[in-house]
Amino acid sequence: MLYLKNDYAEGAYPPILEALARTNLESTDGYGEDPHSKHARALIRAQCACPEAAVHFLSGGTQTNLCLIAHALLPYQAAIAADTGHICTHETGAIEATGHKAIAMPGVDGKLTASLIEEAVLAHPNHHMVEPKLVYLSHPSELGTLYKKAELKAIREVCSRYHLLLYLDGARLASALAAEENDLFLPDLAQLCDAFYIGGTKCGALFGEALVIPNRRLAEGFLYTLKQRGARLAKGRMLGIQFEVLMQGDTYQKLGEKANQMAAILREGLREAGCPFLVESPTNQLFPILPDALIGQLQQRYDFIIQQRTDESHQAVRFITSWATREEDIREFLSELPA
Amino acid sequence: MLYLKNDYAEGAYPPILEALARTNLESTDGYGEDPHSKHARALIRAQCACPEAAVHFLSGGTQTNLCLIAHALLPYQAAIAADTGHICTHETGAIEATGHKAIAMPGVDGKLTASLIEEAVLAHPNHHMVEPKLVYLSHPSELGTLYKKAELKAIREVCSRYHLLLYLDGARLASALAAEENDLFLPDLAQLCDAFYIGGTKCGALFGEALVIPNRRLAEGFLYTLKQRGARLAKGRMLGIQFEVLMQGDTYQKLGEKANQMAAILREGLREAGCPFLVESPTNQLFPILPDALIGQLQQRYDFIIQQRTDESHQAVRFITSWATREEDIREFLSELPA
Amino acid sequence: MLYLKNDYAEGAYPPILEALARTNLESTDGYGEDPHSKHARALIRAQCACPEAAVHFLSGGTQTNLCLIAHALLPYQAAIAADTGHICTHETGAIEATGHKAIAMPGVDGKLTASLIEEAVLAHPNHHMVEPKLVYLSHPSELGTLYKKAELKAIREVCSRYHLLLYLDGARLASALAAEENDLFLPDLAQLCDAFYIGGTKCGALFGEALVIPNRRLAEGFLYTLKQRGARLAKGRMLGIQFEVLMQGDTYQKLGEKANQMAAILREGLREAGCPFLVESPTNQLFPILPDALIGQLQQRYDFIIQQRTDESHQAVRFITSWATREEDIREFLSELPA
Amino acid sequence: MLYLKNDYAEGAYPPILEALARTNLESTDGYGEDPHSKHARALIRAQCACPEAAVHFLSGGTQTNLCLIAHALLPYQAAIAADTGHICTHETGAIEATGHKAIAMPGVDGKLTASLIEEAVLAHPNHHMVEPKLVYLSHPSELGTLYKKAELKAIREVCSRYHLLLYLDGARLASALAAEENDLFLPDLAQLCDAFYIGGTKCGALFGEALVIPNRRLAEGFLYTLKQRGARLAKGRMLGIQFEVLMQGDTYQKLGEKANQMAAILREGLREAGCPFLVESPTNQLFPILPDALIGQLQQRYDFIIQQRTDESHQAVRFITSWATREEDIREFLSELPA
Repeated sequence: MLYLKNDYAEGAYPPILEALARTNLESTDGYGEDPHSKHARALIRAQCACPEAAVHFLSGGTQTNLCLIAHALLPYQAAIAADTGHICTHETGAIEATGHKAIAMPGVDGKLTASLIEEAVLAHPNHHMVEPKLVYLSHPSELGTLYKKAELKAIREVCSRYHLLLYLDGARLASALAAEENDLFLPDLAQLCDAFYIGGTKCGALFGEALVIPNRRLAEGFLYTLKQRGARLAKGRMLGIQFEVLMQGDTYQKLGEKANQMAAILREGLREAGCPFLVESPTNQLFPILPDALIGQLQQRYDFIIQQRTDESHQAVRFITSWATREEDIREFLSELPA
Repeated sequence: MLYLKNDYAEGAYPPILEALARTNLESTDGYGEDPHSKHARALIRAQCACPEAAVHFLSGGTQTNLCLIAHALLPYQAAIAADTGHICTHETGAIEATGHKAIAMPGVDGKLTASLIEEAVLAHPNHHMVEPKLVYLSHPSELGTLYKKAELKAIREVCSRYHLLLYLDGARLASALAAEENDLFLPDLAQLCDAFYIGGTKCGALFGEALVIPNRRLAEGFLYTLKQRGARLAKGRMLGIQFEVLMQGDTYQKLGEKANQMAAILREGLREAGCPFLVESPTNQLFPILPDALIGQLQQRYDFIIQQRTDESHQAVRFITSWATREEDIREFLSELPA
Repeated sequence: MLYLKNDYAEGAYPPILEALARTNLESTDGYGEDPHSKHARALIRAQCACPEAAVHFLSGGTQTNLCLIAHALLPYQAAIAADTGHICTHETGAIEATGHKAIAMPGVDGKLTASLIEEAVLAHPNHHMVEPKLVYLSHPSELGTLYKKAELKAIREVCSRYHLLLYLDGARLASALAAEENDLFLPDLAQLCDAFYIGGTKCGALFGEALVIPNRRLAEGFLYTLKQRGARLAKGRMLGIQFEVLMQGDTYQKLGEKANQMAAILREGLREAGCPFLVESPTNQLFPILPDALIGQLQQRYDFIIQQRTDESHQAVRFITSWATREEDIREFLSELPA
Repeated sequence: MLYLKNDYAEGAYPPILEALARTNLESTDGYGEDPHSKHARALIRAQCACPEAAVHFLSGGTQTNLCLIAHALLPYQAAIAADTGHICTHETGAIEATGHKAIAMPGVDGKLTASLIEEAVLAHPNHHMVEPKLVYLSHPSELGTLYKKAELKAIREVCSRYHLLLYLDGARLASALAAEENDLFLPDLAQLCDAFYIGGTKCGALFGEALVIPNRRLAEGFLYTLKQRGARLAKGRMLGIQFEVLMQGDTYQKLGEKANQMAAILREGLREAGCPFLVESPTNQLFPILPDALIGQLQQRYDFIIQQRTDESHQAVRFITSWATREEDIREFLSELPA
């Protein structure tokens, strides 16, 4: 069965395994205080052009989101997110479990806008309500869409006006960085966001995310939060070594490029087959709208997710490609579509 | 510098890396629903002689402790632990952060006893106080000591009498299983405990712990807890593959044996050099009492932890060995001790 | 200035003060274990025709909601509420602060429906999402509307089908019980709900709510929850004495009747003045739509809340009457409306 | 049966009821924004000689403690308290339920000392442990003892040295203020503490505590915390009116004086009867050590608490007097003691 279900169906980009093997018997300090983690941090700071940023390595996206948000907010403060945002939908209430409300706004193609954020702030004028304090974005969004630099700047502006922190979830950031239409690079994120993470799990790592916190005040005490939330690996170097590989040169972006190329072939083929799309996504997540009968037939051989019903005989599905997707598999899949 | 500081200074038992490399390009389901995780679960159930047990893989010890305890308790219930217990001392209040009190009792050589547990229960007679509901043991304890089967049975009895759940932290379980004086094996733990974990991080894995929950009712809904606490790896098979290796035959116990052999040489050498010990530990953690001057001298070349001051010129230190410790390093260390 | 802003602008229904004075120097047990609290519980059980119900007295509505919901849910479970529900809007994230998500569904005139509840359940099919477990209703709703008995029965049915608990917030229950169109009485609530509260603060008490828990299993351990959340008054009899007065005969309903009568005069007058209403409310909360200029003029002498803008020159406002509202004040207010 | 069990067995100091009756039909704003609450705040600020202090009224002691502590701490920070402190023993884990550890130190006659606090800080040197951030004192302590001004100054000093907040629980502050040996008055507390509360429930109010927060930065956003924790009464004036009475002139201290006088007669009588005491308490809580047989006999007619067993035939009991205790009852009680 071919996996079009997600971008974490395989292991790691092979040089990562080689690096783990090469360093296996080195004795180092634990908890991310080893030379590899330090080196990976330096590489990330350099790529972000932000020598002052704090950088921490965590095991997964939900963990990263809950640690950062729980760390950033006072007990009565809340995060603003698009209603399709991962923290609103697929984290089993992880944010609420740390005591905070996630205010869901009706996103536009999976994205927040500056005016939606302002609307959320104005709807919470007093202490009978939570105080909005952090904006959560996903880039790419859960619908595969991207923020343009101008959009992110407008969001930063509204955040500054209302004293909100801006946090960006980059679970699939490699795919964003490699997208043709992209104009937001790591130094932009470091300049505009108070915190963001560079996703590893979905972009070639065995597991792991690199949380970058350019806002030094926000970074204070974060090691306590990591330990308290069970997010600090004893053998922290496992994460450092992986990001040493990913952050070498343009490796990370190249892995995104590979995923995007596979998605482009798939997108093109679907379009040729006459499929409309739920949303235009320039990244490695595609949401074609297919007839129910075809879906049933494809499910025999392919594994993918049903996103939502669009009319009584059609549903949008989600296809995802990755650094490990093989072109021949995509071609074979497309050959099964009705002409 | 030689690490006597912990048992997580190196990478993984090499066959684990080989298995990761061998399986790297397989496409599998995520979140532990892959064939390797299923196989590892089957191996663990078989070794525990407990075909009904739920088995989950997590990334680290603090995470495992907080997930299980938060899952097990109602909001007003508390865990009972020895005052030296990991949850009381070295987890940055992780249990409290989930809303629960950890009741610290004065442990005996790092261990709880049936009568200490009863004392804790009787000291909380009404709803002006928390309700003790779970007993947390570490085996080996944080002082390297072991529970005898008779002791664990007595603890199980008091737990049953007072409707307490019994949970055992096996971060260094391999060392316990391999200890000469040990009479508690996996089937005993599965029979006597409501839940326990088989430590991977400190016993040869890159990272990872296998949580075994023989109590089926306690296991209900645990996937929700895992996801909510950020403890569910997307590429869950990373953990499954590692435990496939560790749980093959007597691999896990052999890794503990290796650590214990190195500790035995070290213990013997220290004893010959006339060192007293803070506590008699039959496992891979040793707590010799050394003069301050010698400690200062050793710290030049060796990395270890100061446990506590014992008199005005002596301190107990902690030396830990692992599956990766080399005999020549231990011999060289011993040769530096004053005759 | 005349208060049309809320139903808690005055002190208590005078016989309550008399009862407090009469009993002032009695020496009794604390924490609600006194004879007055016991008697009040007996009166409530009798009026609810539910001799088995647990009854607890708390200080306010937010406190009651958060105690019951935190008590009822496992950490990964959530409450379903109308988006206008008090727990979603005006409790500063109190439910989230206990770790739980409140799932907001788009209410119909402030009310949930059986099908909205089912929709919420079906949208949360697996452990990547919270598990809906409790339904929160307000009766009257925050828009003054009432559930009919048939509606509540349908909701009970869907709750039973999906193993949901049904909890009803009766902050203004007196007004509901006294409404002409009402067909839901205390015995109905006790039969259909797992828990509900009889509001005191907004219905004649100095402060206090009576939480009725017909579901005995849900009631277990609730004293622990009360104490832990700071909701247990040392002089618990203050609450018992007040409910002894309110639950004597038809006192409680009569206080609601008085509020409703004042609302009826106000509603009639507004209608005669040609005001449309945001929603048809048969209880003591009215939501007339007024021109901005008139609102500005009325605000000089009257205190009330702006509910929402309805078009560019009109807003819906909220007027509330109470047991203490004086007819002459309402008449005078109406006389100020333009003919 | 005579209540020597607590100081909340009766209603309110009668002028409080009179004030409630006198103001009953006034229409005022809710949530403590009424003129009575404002006046009460002004009286408290004046008595504290601290015109800048924030003052909030809450319903009870546990609620006050949990609100202030949850408000003051970051998620990984902890409170230091004596092991006999109310937050450690009799609040059903209320502090832990807000996510924070209470570090229990072995108190001296129920009191913390500057050196115990320093010891607690030094025992938590890094982020593997919680960060001590707030010191919780009770004055009088739970054993009836008092801090001297010099002791509180030393504690303030250690707090300032280690950046700790100092919070004082004054549940029975009236008794402290009225004690002969007392040298700590309201202006001292306002100067030395970051926050403290003036207890009403146990000192003549129907219910209610006045939380004083001289540290303006700590006070920021506290209304959010109050609302979120269910601690904000809609009819907030109920609390304001009561403190208007208590804070008029020396009323509050006089109520403490009355309680202390009754305790003095009782203490003297017990001493004459040859009773030793568990601890020397100059306030309204006494802890005489009585033979088991006498205790059994007294329990027939008197209600009091057993504090702890002191030897195999004796136990320390707790007797409490209040503003409402009658001298003839104390005399009669003493007459029952064996000569």
